[in-house]
Amino acid sequence: MIFASDNWAGAHPAISSALADAAGGYDPAYGTGELDRKVAARFNEIFEREVAVFFVATGTAANSLALASTTKPGAISFCHREAHVIEDECGAPEYLSGGARLRPVDGRLSKIDPGLLADEIARLQPYNVHGGQASAITITQATEVGTVYSLQEIDAISSIARRHAVSLHMDGARFANALVSLGVTPAEMTWRRGVDMLSFGGTKNGCWCAEAVVLFDPAAAKDFAFYRKRAAQLFSKSRFVAAQFDAYLRDDVWLDTARHANAMAQNLAAAFAASAEARLAWTPQANEVFATMPAATIGRLKAAGAVFYDWRRPQSFDDILAPDETLCRFVTSFATKPDDVQRFSALLSQSN
Amino acid sequence: MIFASDNWAGAHPAISSALADAAGGYDPAYGTGELDRKVAARFNEIFEREVAVFFVATGTAANSLALASTTKPGAISFCHREAHVIEDECGAPEYLSGGARLRPVDGRLSKIDPGLLADEIARLQPYNVHGGQASAITITQATEVGTVYSLQEIDAISSIARRHAVSLHMDGARFANALVSLGVTPAEMTWRRGVDMLSFGGTKNGCWCAEAVVLFDPAAAKDFAFYRKRAAQLFSKSRFVAAQFDAYLRDDVWLDTARHANAMAQNLAAAFAASAEARLAWTPQANEVFATMPAATIGRLKAAGAVFYDWRRPQSFDDILAPDETLCRFVTSFATKPDDVQRFSALLSQSN
Amino acid sequence: MIFASDNWAGAHPAISSALADAAGGYDPAYGTGELDRKVAARFNEIFEREVAVFFVATGTAANSLALASTTKPGAISFCHREAHVIEDECGAPEYLSGGARLRPVDGRLSKIDPGLLADEIARLQPYNVHGGQASAITITQATEVGTVYSLQEIDAISSIARRHAVSLHMDGARFANALVSLGVTPAEMTWRRGVDMLSFGGTKNGCWCAEAVVLFDPAAAKDFAFYRKRAAQLFSKSRFVAAQFDAYLRDDVWLDTARHANAMAQNLAAAFAASAEARLAWTPQANEVFATMPAATIGRLKAAGAVFYDWRRPQSFDDILAPDETLCRFVTSFATKPDDVQRFSALLSQSN
Amino acid sequence: MIFASDNWAGAHPAISSALADAAGGYDPAYGTGELDRKVAARFNEIFEREVAVFFVATGTAANSLALASTTKPGAISFCHREAHVIEDECGAPEYLSGGARLRPVDGRLSKIDPGLLADEIARLQPYNVHGGQASAITITQATEVGTVYSLQEIDAISSIARRHAVSLHMDGARFANALVSLGVTPAEMTWRRGVDMLSFGGTKNGCWCAEAVVLFDPAAAKDFAFYRKRAAQLFSKSRFVAAQFDAYLRDDVWLDTARHANAMAQNLAAAFAASAEARLAWTPQANEVFATMPAATIGRLKAAGAVFYDWRRPQSFDDILAPDETLCRFVTSFATKPDDVQRFSALLSQSN
Repeated sequence: MIFASDNWAGAHPAISSALADAAGGYDPAYGTGELDRKVAARFNEIFEREVAVFFVATGTAANSLALASTTKPGAISFCHREAHVIEDECGAPEYLSGGARLRPVDGRLSKIDPGLLADEIARLQPYNVHGGQASAITITQATEVGTVYSLQEIDAISSIARRHAVSLHMDGARFANALVSLGVTPAEMTWRRGVDMLSFGGTKNGCWCAEAVVLFDPAAAKDFAFYRKRAAQLFSKSRFVAAQFDAYLRDDVWLDTARHANAMAQNLAAAFAASAEARLAWTPQANEVFATMPAATIGRLKAAGAVFYDWRRPQSFDDILAPDETLCRFVTSFATKPDDVQRFSALLSQSN
Repeated sequence: MIFASDNWAGAHPAISSALADAAGGYDPAYGTGELDRKVAARFNEIFEREVAVFFVATGTAANSLALASTTKPGAISFCHREAHVIEDECGAPEYLSGGARLRPVDGRLSKIDPGLLADEIARLQPYNVHGGQASAITITQATEVGTVYSLQEIDAISSIARRHAVSLHMDGARFANALVSLGVTPAEMTWRRGVDMLSFGGTKNGCWCAEAVVLFDPAAAKDFAFYRKRAAQLFSKSRFVAAQFDAYLRDDVWLDTARHANAMAQNLAAAFAASAEARLAWTPQANEVFATMPAATIGRLKAAGAVFYDWRRPQSFDDILAPDETLCRFVTSFATKPDDVQRFSALLSQSN
Repeated sequence: MIFASDNWAGAHPAISSALADAAGGYDPAYGTGELDRKVAARFNEIFEREVAVFFVATGTAANSLALASTTKPGAISFCHREAHVIEDECGAPEYLSGGARLRPVDGRLSKIDPGLLADEIARLQPYNVHGGQASAITITQATEVGTVYSLQEIDAISSIARRHAVSLHMDGARFANALVSLGVTPAEMTWRRGVDMLSFGGTKNGCWCAEAVVLFDPAAAKDFAFYRKRAAQLFSKSRFVAAQFDAYLRDDVWLDTARHANAMAQNLAAAFAASAEARLAWTPQANEVFATMPAATIGRLKAAGAVFYDWRRPQSFDDILAPDETLCRFVTSFATKPDDVQRFSALLSQSN
Repeated sequence: MIFASDNWAGAHPAISSALADAAGGYDPAYGTGELDRKVAARFNEIFEREVAVFFVATGTAANSLALASTTKPGAISFCHREAHVIEDECGAPEYLSGGARLRPVDGRLSKIDPGLLADEIARLQPYNVHGGQASAITITQATEVGTVYSLQEIDAISSIARRHAVSLHMDGARFANALVSLGVTPAEMTWRRGVDMLSFGGTKNGCWCAEAVVLFDPAAAKDFAFYRKRAAQLFSKSRFVAAQFDAYLRDDVWLDTARHANAMAQNLAAAFAASAEARLAWTPQANEVFATMPAATIGRLKAAGAVFYDWRRPQSFDDILAPDETLCRFVTSFATKPDDVQRFSALLSQSN
């Protein structure tokens, strides 16, 4: 009953066997091999347009380099105040952007409030050398608390980005989970909404290490290769990342694993909704479930073998959480077994 | 007959099967799992002392972060003018060090000349705020041209580092090749010589992605975790790097693959030495062989299926190369087949 | 009737004539001359202990380099969300710190709330490589809205800094105004309270360009000289800054100019308090006065020759300002003429 | 008999009285005042075209920000290996460029050899993500050793810059000295030769602190204001820099002071040329004279009150200096008194 993180899972069998298949023979290095090119073409298909794809080592690298590529002197990027980029990346986005600032914006359930964003970005206008200049907005899809921006919500953010001529970035560490949650196409959730850059994550959803920056404006690609190499993110034997993406994006593997993880989350949510002891904190839309419980329940569940994290209290959730409630996070993945969810649900209901 | 680069090879079967074995089950992320700890202990054994080990994604990252961790304001690090850090890393060492400078030093066959190094570093003395301050020296073992520093040569560099109180870093992208070439222990080639930090590379020698920074002063470890994370180099599913190192360092796999690659290089060298048409440019000590040949020979070999690079002329090799000679590089690896070397040798001798 | 900014004033006659006196003859450059040393000794006297003093070109430089000198990888510094460092310095503190983050904290009247600060800094604890590490706290004395931290309030911030082992920096762009407002000594307002680093500003208070970083721990001085030079902030003919400070700190010139500016602010405040049309927004404690007025009044005053700024609405002043109120800022300085204040007061009262 | 540095002189009387005149009254801050605008217009006149002018605090800042404004990821700028930017600025050009590299190029008498430059820059071609990308070339006019590039020599460098589409920067810390040495106009020595950016220095030639970046492409100006502010180089009371430039550029003050300094250097050179004991190392073209002398002579001159520096041996002057010769530097300035030069010359000739 491991619900600690989707990072605790290993690799999906399809990924694992693709890696084994790729191990033999010789292939040009640094992203110039045949498999690299095949995967690049596959990204074009999936996004229904020509895109530029750059493999990197981590999701933090993808986010940081996407933002770095927008950097002007005095640059300020806007993110939700609970976003991974500002809470969990040790300052990498700022460091790899040469000191550009991340400015936190509030909003319910970890989604940027467009009204507050518009106010914040307008504060930098007009041209004011003291205040700095807006360079990007970054949103997380799905968010760190398992919610998903609707297409309309993305449109609202996007129109602000357009109005102020700044780039719109999407942190898609859980891109597939959001996609199947909304039931839309990759194009509909990204560039057709005005998204300029995407961190496309495969690691949490079944790969062991497959992260990419997707630029919807291929003209930006030339310098991006230098951004990546300068940040020490260019794999020599990149065929092994290509092999993972090749298997991941074939036969809907990536969508199936995401659907499974989301379904497992719904089952967990149902168990919490039915519990007299725990409370479902909000409705999950992807593969993360948050619930509040008394310490005794937490202890009982953990003693019985359930693994999950007590979650730091988000700063802006005062309307959702009572002051004395303990928030717990449960994450599902491709590897989550239905049996485990069932056992956990039974365990939870016994507590009544 | 692929002699293009050791990066063109895939993964050794032992590595490949270790990756497959690691794919199942759950494991804590970000370097805190059991396999990560096991590998850390193995590094202690290999180096015969407690060391701190940090996995990173690329050799460039290992070099850059090691140097970054020594950074003072106005910092200057010294490297050979042909070193990978200054020629082939797109400025990553400077960028990830926040602008610290790499200062090139000359020396025969890509090894820093201790006398010139002593002069260069002395130019920064005494305390002079305009000139900046020395912070590190980095040497490459084996070098980019297939030569190896002797223990005495390392001692000579090391004593300069000590005298000026700067850190000594070793770029060990081909560490194992140098080790078996000298026939010494890892401890003898590193910290017993005064090396403070090591980029320990497994990728070129049979892994697909296994690079680590080894700090011989574990007290430096606390901040290093932040240096790594800030540079977006902390893998979530780090067990997959651990699995590679686990297999690599077990049963002398790493030494055997290096011995094989070096032996293949010796065979190639013998073929060049025996050739009336080509000239062995210098004696290889690791897994890279450099030869000069007329354009016609190069064309004939390539047409017959040999893959290798015409090599950019090193800047300081005027005593070794005639002005009109074309230099070619041949790299061997764990994957080089004796048959291929034999075929190539036969091909070369036919040209006589 | 110029109340636009203390930066609009020129130079005090004592400063001006000191500059003229310093113009002749030869003097060693880069801070090594006799006048530089004399001023350094004067700083020791004023602060009643040995300090290290570094002249820089601007207040932004002083703040940025002080914070830069505390930088660790993943560093986060805390400031008030309205502070000059985060609102008006174009990202210089982050840029010159190599990407360290400024984290905004709320608090009434531009003073950091110690409770909120304690919460924020505690969120980074314990050791968490994802979150980064706290490195400094910076407070502004006097603040950007003309308020002053009491000694007790500084103590409260300082004890948090001590508990978390981070540096405490004071932005003293208006240091003298705060000092005479509290009626304490420089030592009492700084290192005796636990302040580690001070931006000591002379420019707004009568110099044309005299800013310095004062380090209360002289052991930090060695590297600071490199931080300054690396940031291109080391004047060659530094005697001209020394000459300004020499005159500024002699015969209580600096305290007299500050007292004058503060008194002028009190007179302005009295005028607003007596006005039926304008409202004194809060009680000034230094040389800045904020008032709210209808647009018609603003127009009338400006038409009559008063120069002042409509002020951007601080983000966290909702308990002080009604949604439709326009905030105006009036700044006094050594150069403010009592006649001008009287004329302005009369003008304001006519409006009743 | 002070020949230590042109930084040891104070301020020219015309500058000094301009500063006094500017001290009164109110003026908008941060470069927006009337005097700032007047000086900007004067620069347009002097350069016979519209230019963008940015005052900064130091020559190091001017050089660093000019180079920073050309920065791409993986950027490499080329300078002479003895240039001030690489020898005497503590890494500021790299730091303020976010880690861009300075690559040293050789050449006689501190002037870049166009052939070597062409080779170096060609090494980075074609597009190669490992090697980085060329972004700028910087030349010093007059050089650090008192020589001056002819117009033809600038053309040769400039055509390389054009061919590789990189920016050409001129470090004009001693711009006026070079100008009067060549007897050409500012336009002829800069943009008509293809110079894109100029560090225009007034400090060494009679101001106390008047340095500016001149951009010949005003389209680059918008972002440059942010580069400057982000580097903490925007003076609040910028009128005082404007006042210096206003006086400096009026009535040929700046050309007269430079002519005087150069003439004094010629007189010194004549003395060395006539000396049996000292040797004029090379022909001075600006305001610096280098001579070699035995230690006894150096001691005798210093004992008699002459102040000058033993100069570090340039790295690439082996064809000019014998291994055992001690090089001494003598710098003249607007403040150098003919009497002092005469006394020194007499002193020198007595040694015979």
